[in-house]
Amino acid sequence: MKLAVMGAGDVGQSVARLAGEYGHTVTAIADSSSAVWDENGVDVTEALTRKSESGAVGPNDPEGVLGAEYDVLIEATPTTLGDAEPGFGHVTTALERDRDVVLANKGPVAQRYDDLAAVAADSEGAVRFEATVGGAIPAIATAEGLGPEHVTAARGVLNGTANFILSRMQAEGLAYEHVLAEAQDLGVAETDPSFDVEGTDAALKGVILANVLDGGGHTLADARIEGIKDLPANALDVAADDGMTVRLIAEATADRIRVGPRLVPENSTLAVTGTMNILQFDTQHAGQLNISGRGAGGPETASAVLADVDRLSCDTTSSVRTGSR
Amino acid sequence: MKLAVMGAGDVGQSVARLAGEYGHTVTAIADSSSAVWDENGVDVTEALTRKSESGAVGPNDPEGVLGAEYDVLIEATPTTLGDAEPGFGHVTTALERDRDVVLANKGPVAQRYDDLAAVAADSEGAVRFEATVGGAIPAIATAEGLGPEHVTAARGVLNGTANFILSRMQAEGLAYEHVLAEAQDLGVAETDPSFDVEGTDAALKGVILANVLDGGGHTLADARIEGIKDLPANALDVAADDGMTVRLIAEATADRIRVGPRLVPENSTLAVTGTMNILQFDTQHAGQLNISGRGAGGPETASAVLADVDRLSCDTTSSVRTGSR
Repeated sequence: MKLAVMGAGDVGQSVARLAGEYGHTVTAIADSSSAVWDENGVDVTEALTRKSESGAVGPNDPEGVLGAEYDVLIEATPTTLGDAEPGFGHVTTALERDRDVVLANKGPVAQRYDDLAAVAADSEGAVRFEATVGGAIPAIATAEGLGPEHVTAARGVLNGTANFILSRMQAEGLAYEHVLAEAQDLGVAETDPSFDVEGTDAALKGVILANVLDGGGHTLADARIEGIKDLPANALDVAADDGMTVRLIAEATADRIRVGPRLVPENSTLAVTGTMNILQFDTQHAGQLNISGRGAGGPETASAVLADVDRLSCDTTSSVRTGSR
Repeated sequence: MKLAVMGAGDVGQSVARLAGEYGHTVTAIADSSSAVWDENGVDVTEALTRKSESGAVGPNDPEGVLGAEYDVLIEATPTTLGDAEPGFGHVTTALERDRDVVLANKGPVAQRYDDLAAVAADSEGAVRFEATVGGAIPAIATAEGLGPEHVTAARGVLNGTANFILSRMQAEGLAYEHVLAEAQDLGVAETDPSFDVEGTDAALKGVILANVLDGGGHTLADARIEGIKDLPANALDVAADDGMTVRLIAEATADRIRVGPRLVPENSTLAVTGTMNILQFDTQHAGQLNISGRGAGGPETASAVLADVDRLSCDTTSSVRTGSR
């Protein structure tokens, strides 16, 4: 399919680089200030080299991408809160043109799910957003497979930065500030880590899961959020004395969405370490299902985007296929 | 949709009981010696009560179900090796009628995948088999989502009986025969446990995964199989001294399918306990993905069957839906 990639951060760049390998053609790429498009296919390597050298992927205006030739718009611009603009506007424009949309941007799905459903209802285009929760983890597809109405709760470790900090604090007995600085040096934490350590990012993912399970109705305003930066210095030691550890858990149940540090047994399923994510579904008939994997990273998240692109086709209704790896 | 359920063991009975809750109508049920069908819907409770009281679900001949009214044939008869009959014949008949087929029976998918693909290619019907690997774990859907060509290996603990025995042996320091007897008392192991403890069941699942990843070409004959019953009595103690344990691991890579007892670190991802299953995918771009859940049980496996039935429709290409749990 022809893909237009809005956003040229880690995820957007990885989607553009991997698209060919997944059998797709990138017909447009935009970063925050520039764009390039070609209905016969953009030279991705050239465009991204241009970006790294001159700071611009191309000569055109980013918004112009929305009017370019494409089957699927990949919305990979940075997540914004409030009205989730400009992401929401990009998605709306594509849907009004009856194009499909795959989001890596959490904003529109967490903050304006109901508006999104309304716009999608009037469009021939479909909307998917696997990449918004848990990076490489197939969170949304698994919930859909279980049947949202048969899932009683979803919870997990959905922010790799906070989890890296907590697991390092416990493993090395180091203080929060020390580990945060280390994480920043490693590029695991942003210069401004508030979005991750205050629980906002994990809460957005909890809200998205709640919207999937309930068919919408939730925004960040419905989430009770507590981060990890005010965690008492000795909390991890006290936990360790009882064979427990602390993880930042996001949870969506039928009656609440909450994010906060929780005590979990060491070596238990939820106690993933480093930047790993884990998502746990409680189901009506199938017990508990756990999925762990890389919750972030360009190629990891791009693979979730490209899996969504494949799900847009109906040619996958038979599991029996021929041909080889 | 209208479902015809062939096979009235734990899985078949659970599919029939849960079908209504998933929005489907059971138009036929067959056990090994009898059947009942009604194009307007069979009274499932009545049929299963009849079976428990008189041993027969209905007055008719089981094979007659294949000619009854249905959209999807649920093939849940016992797994057979060799030519995988009668299951393969049931599937063929349904596909020749351009009906969809969902298998819980491993035989046709492990032993005759290429024949299955050939019959499916000439049919309007689709074939799915999520329930054949890992019970409630979405093994096949996840491999499809990743893109089989992007999965470099699949491995896991895929037989709950063998895993229950190994984890009890280690936890309690008990001998194989003792734990096997306990497992048989609990109904975790069959009276004849050979299928599970000799590794055949896990190997069939490894072969199915290899067929999914490679687009066919494999049967049980390609698998190197070693069970757990000849495990040296002290193997688990020796392992424990090094912080390791033993699990029966099934693995499908590009160049081999094998099942056997393997050393894995205690508390590691693969060291699930009791009857839990875990499946691990190594991927090209998304790192390692782990999925654990209940690998057996009527309702658990039925939920995988019913998830496949939903996947047969194309109405799920948009993740944005409205309505509530």
